Amino acid sequence: MERITGHYLIETPYNLEDAAAVLAGEQSSGTFVSVPGETEELKERFAARIENIEELDEVKNPSIPGDINNSKYKRARVSISWSVENFQDNIPTLISTLQGNLYELRQFTGLKFDDFDLPHWYMGKFRGPAFGADGTKQLAGVKSDRPMIGTIIKPSVGMSPEDTAALVKELIEAGIDFIKDDELMSSTANSPFKKRVELVMKEINDFQQKTGKKVMYAFNISGDLDTLKNNYETIVKNDGTCAMISINSVGWAGVKAIADMGKLSIHAHRNGWGMINRHPMLGINFPAYSKLWRLAGVDQLHVNGIRNKFWESDESVIRSIKSCSDRFLDHKELLPVVSSGQWGGQAFDTWKFTNTTDLLYMAGGGIMAHPSGPAGGVRALTQAWEGAVSGKSLEETEKAHKEFAESVQKFGKK
Amino acid sequence: MERITGHYLIETPYNLEDAAAVLAGEQSSGTFVSVPGETEELKERFAARIENIEELDEVKNPSIPGDINNSKYKRARVSISWSVENFQDNIPTLISTLQGNLYELRQFTGLKFDDFDLPHWYMGKFRGPAFGADGTKQLAGVKSDRPMIGTIIKPSVGMSPEDTAALVKELIEAGIDFIKDDELMSSTANSPFKKRVELVMKEINDFQQKTGKKVMYAFNISGDLDTLKNNYETIVKNDGTCAMISINSVGWAGVKAIADMGKLSIHAHRNGWGMINRHPMLGINFPAYSKLWRLAGVDQLHVNGIRNKFWESDESVIRSIKSCSDRFLDHKELLPVVSSGQWGGQAFDTWKFTNTTDLLYMAGGGIMAHPSGPAGGVRALTQAWEGAVSGKSLEETEKAHKEFAESVQKFGKK
Repeated sequence: MERITGHYLIETPYNLEDAAAVLAGEQSSGTFVSVPGETEELKERFAARIENIEELDEVKNPSIPGDINNSKYKRARVSISWSVENFQDNIPTLISTLQGNLYELRQFTGLKFDDFDLPHWYMGKFRGPAFGADGTKQLAGVKSDRPMIGTIIKPSVGMSPEDTAALVKELIEAGIDFIKDDELMSSTANSPFKKRVELVMKEINDFQQKTGKKVMYAFNISGDLDTLKNNYETIVKNDGTCAMISINSVGWAGVKAIADMGKLSIHAHRNGWGMINRHPMLGINFPAYSKLWRLAGVDQLHVNGIRNKFWESDESVIRSIKSCSDRFLDHKELLPVVSSGQWGGQAFDTWKFTNTTDLLYMAGGGIMAHPSGPAGGVRALTQAWEGAVSGKSLEETEKAHKEFAESVQKFGKK
Repeated sequence: MERITGHYLIETPYNLEDAAAVLAGEQSSGTFVSVPGETEELKERFAARIENIEELDEVKNPSIPGDINNSKYKRARVSISWSVENFQDNIPTLISTLQGNLYELRQFTGLKFDDFDLPHWYMGKFRGPAFGADGTKQLAGVKSDRPMIGTIIKPSVGMSPEDTAALVKELIEAGIDFIKDDELMSSTANSPFKKRVELVMKEINDFQQKTGKKVMYAFNISGDLDTLKNNYETIVKNDGTCAMISINSVGWAGVKAIADMGKLSIHAHRNGWGMINRHPMLGINFPAYSKLWRLAGVDQLHVNGIRNKFWESDESVIRSIKSCSDRFLDHKELLPVVSSGQWGGQAFDTWKFTNTTDLLYMAGGGIMAHPSGPAGGVRALTQAWEGAVSGKSLEETEKAHKEFAESVQKFGKK
């Protein structure tokens, strides 16, 4: 039978083969003693198998609490496989297998779920992103030679629908492709969801009437299932093209149910990501994480940005961006959402290290606090990306364009 | 306006007040520069506030990557509050606020979400557990003077519905109160969900007809939303009383939608918990975690057990058990599910440190691998709890009861 393979980074005071066997046992037939009924035939069919162990370095101190009666902790890459028969098309149970109780095992002083592979059996079982990178850019009328340029409504919380709509008008007239609610903003006392959608979409639809360009707005529909569905329908009714969901807060089943509706590009916000990724030896890495959400059907997924304001390394951001276009079943590619402390200056390195324009490149303060106002901010970002893609340096682009030069002066650290 | 207060354990190389201000800023109006529109009036109404800072110890090494240009890292308990107006009854957005992007802040080298308080505004807005601790015990016909005694079908994956039903028959005749699927087992190639429910419930219903006692079986309904709903209805149709959900894998919105159906006690399995809790300075602690799931309406929640086979400390387990009966709005109490390496010997300390019988006390191998078979295992656990509650020691109970004595011989470490 075809098998699913999970790839892990482990750290353990034990012999690597023994530690891997504990993981495989716990995630299939395990209990702390042998029990009747655990026959060889059952084991052969349903037990997890160790497929590979690649020894890495040794460290002197354990990364997380566990069995620490040792002075050496070995690290390794380990691959474990399970038969499709164990869960078939049940992804939450696959999640419980790939990233469930294994994190509880005291035999590990470090365990990070890095990536997984699905066999041919899953082809055609899940649609994946309904729009994906290309489809989402097309919805916003953005050609393939440049990233979508986006921004976030700031302040995050507190603006009225009228204020939001006025700002949206200013931004779309400045040539922006994409605008989003903050993840802290869904429906507040002074900005009910429906009213905000109506006023914002009126500006976007009016602009489309005049110019043919339809700006994408990601309304934060996050909530319980009824709220998600009602908010989604409100967007559809007002001719919107995108819904944003805080995926970790809503969860896989809720996100899947909404993505299955198939009419809007789903902007997946991964707030809470640091909780499960920040420790180098605990949690999950982006390739594994993003595949689970591709199965749910999200189209856009946050990846942080180069020289971001947060803690994440450039190396990790680059790996994340690249993995959005990794081949996964017959699914469309994910659109990576680049954000956090971005102002255009990072366009040059982002291009250099990823060589793709299939990006949603977002700047919050980088646009809204531009010396020439939001319109200047949008122009500066567009100039930066034109410069980067055409092989110009930051300095050459700075000399050629007023607005980008203003950005460098305000945000640059030369 | 009434406010929600989140309590955090932090570690930072910065001045504590400055670090707390960054957290509050990021989780309300924050971007990396000031933006137009962030007026004093908006800030007053929607900004997060620092309510309290309690300095703890200093450490020399940072717990997680972040700004580490220092040789001292201060730890503190910090409380931050938000107005109800920011999210009202939208719990996923509350989650994104309480445990969202704050984990990304490089100003912290440690951040753990410990607990939160909801104001009176939330009274009556969420039902919470439909059955809770008392109601769940009543459904299984268990009186208040002892815990529910439960076990898990093992091997976890691979048994046929017929094998499972035969084992269930043996266990219910041995006097067990509760049986559950393993979290790795939902619907496998050789045990389709519907068939398993039908055969298992036939045994349980037959036994009820004969004796009046209805054993509770937690069928693992985890899956996408349609699967969850269909599986739930299958249980209801076969007169079952309980559904199990892998809550981290399904997510808050999906769990809430199912718990709202209100006909079954919801057994919440927290597999994946180690991912978000195992590091002492990253993630979430049980009081905060359990309240979020109480809002979704789960009735039973895993808490690990004293001297468990996993890494978690007894101190953390005891705190978790106690917090299940903490007053939370006008909600019913949660039933703590004690498990992992339990065999009855831990009943004495569990009783000593928590003084409650509102527990679902589970043993897998501790029952199934008992020298006198599963029936002996159930009797041994019952004897252990009778002994503990009546003030007897482990040794006294061992002398008084054959089956418990056999457990001590097989599992005990004297």
